[in-house]
Amino acid sequence: MTERTKLRRKPGRGSHDREVIEAILDQALVSHLGVVDGDGSPVVTPTLHVRVGEHVYLHGSAANRTLRAACDSEVCLTATLLDGLVLARAAMHHSANYRSVMLFGAGAQVEDAGEKRRALEALVEKLVPGRWADVREPSEKELRATSVVRIPLAEASAKIRSGPPVDDEPDHQLPVWAGVVGLRLLAGEPEPDPHLAPGIECPAYVTALGRASS
Amino acid sequence: MTERTKLRRKPGRGSHDREVIEAILDQALVSHLGVVDGDGSPVVTPTLHVRVGEHVYLHGSAANRTLRAACDSEVCLTATLLDGLVLARAAMHHSANYRSVMLFGAGAQVEDAGEKRRALEALVEKLVPGRWADVREPSEKELRATSVVRIPLAEASAKIRSGPPVDDEPDHQLPVWAGVVGLRLLAGEPEPDPHLAPGIECPAYVTALGRASS
Repeated sequence: MTERTKLRRKPGRGSHDREVIEAILDQALVSHLGVVDGDGSPVVTPTLHVRVGEHVYLHGSAANRTLRAACDSEVCLTATLLDGLVLARAAMHHSANYRSVMLFGAGAQVEDAGEKRRALEALVEKLVPGRWADVREPSEKELRATSVVRIPLAEASAKIRSGPPVDDEPDHQLPVWAGVVGLRLLAGEPEPDPHLAPGIECPAYVTALGRASS
Repeated sequence: MTERTKLRRKPGRGSHDREVIEAILDQALVSHLGVVDGDGSPVVTPTLHVRVGEHVYLHGSAANRTLRAACDSEVCLTATLLDGLVLARAAMHHSANYRSVMLFGAGAQVEDAGEKRRALEALVEKLVPGRWADVREPSEKELRATSVVRIPLAEASAKIRSGPPVDDEPDHQLPVWAGVVGLRLLAGEPEPDPHLAPGIECPAYVTALGRASS
């Protein structure tokens, strides 16, 4: 725990438990990378991320400005899973159920081709488990054109809200429905690429995405 | 368009169209607020947001540090809708379909009680259309304990990726399935608060959330 990961507001919702933090990072597909630009202003960019052991990896074009700004500088990477809408009897107690992680640290450019390749494999396998064995692997040229940035999973905190609304006791008598409406990300039917060559079936690991999310 | 909202990487995916920007902000429930802390490091916090005309409103406890840091300082608020996974034949062309908005500007504390109330009403109505008429409205005390911050919708850009994978032409002959798996946020069955008084039915505007998202 550091000054930055100290849980100030509603500390009961917070956690520094490594398993909790890893589970949120592993489930969230998108995260938001915050860097400070040359003028000292914040810039927040959506990105895919993947955790491999003790590090979180991001990638992008070698020309990507935000990734360049993340190298050797302090960043904040935040991943959020929206789990539900919380409907209270009082307007002010409406809320959202969510799980989020804030990861602080300095980004480091990954130079080693093997580590870059393993990070990209882990990302593809995170998005679509079983996919890597089927795809054309990155060429040397593609790897050179890709920037992979690593953030150590050392300074992080999770924040979680779950469960029913918390109304003030006197409001419990109001004739107003209260409760939670859960939200989850659902995968739809696979849509084949219009250029798909005839006779190529959709693999089971792709159709499984819809089942896994429902 | 400013230096910050100039679309550098893949400008074909970008837009400064006001209607496009508003539609993304209005559909996204969660956004990520980036501020710079006292040490000059970025901090990115998930938050609910609502657009009312020419402004985007955030709220939180009056003691919320990130909201305080957003006042009279430059912030970046980014909202992202994840629309699908893009499965290419080549590992490097895997991608995500998404729509995102980055909004830059200085946050301003809303002092006017009427404007605060209207922003909170707009937020509740955005999350659950039809809800406001049923709930206990904020008291003076609750309003005072709540900080509402406004960002002008003046300096923003959208970025959108949609459609099938874009593989290199020679890879089209590979015997690998390619296509898109759409993703959407789905609302589940309403779960009543355990404290709900007997005889209170779940209103139609709540059950409608599941239908609207499917």
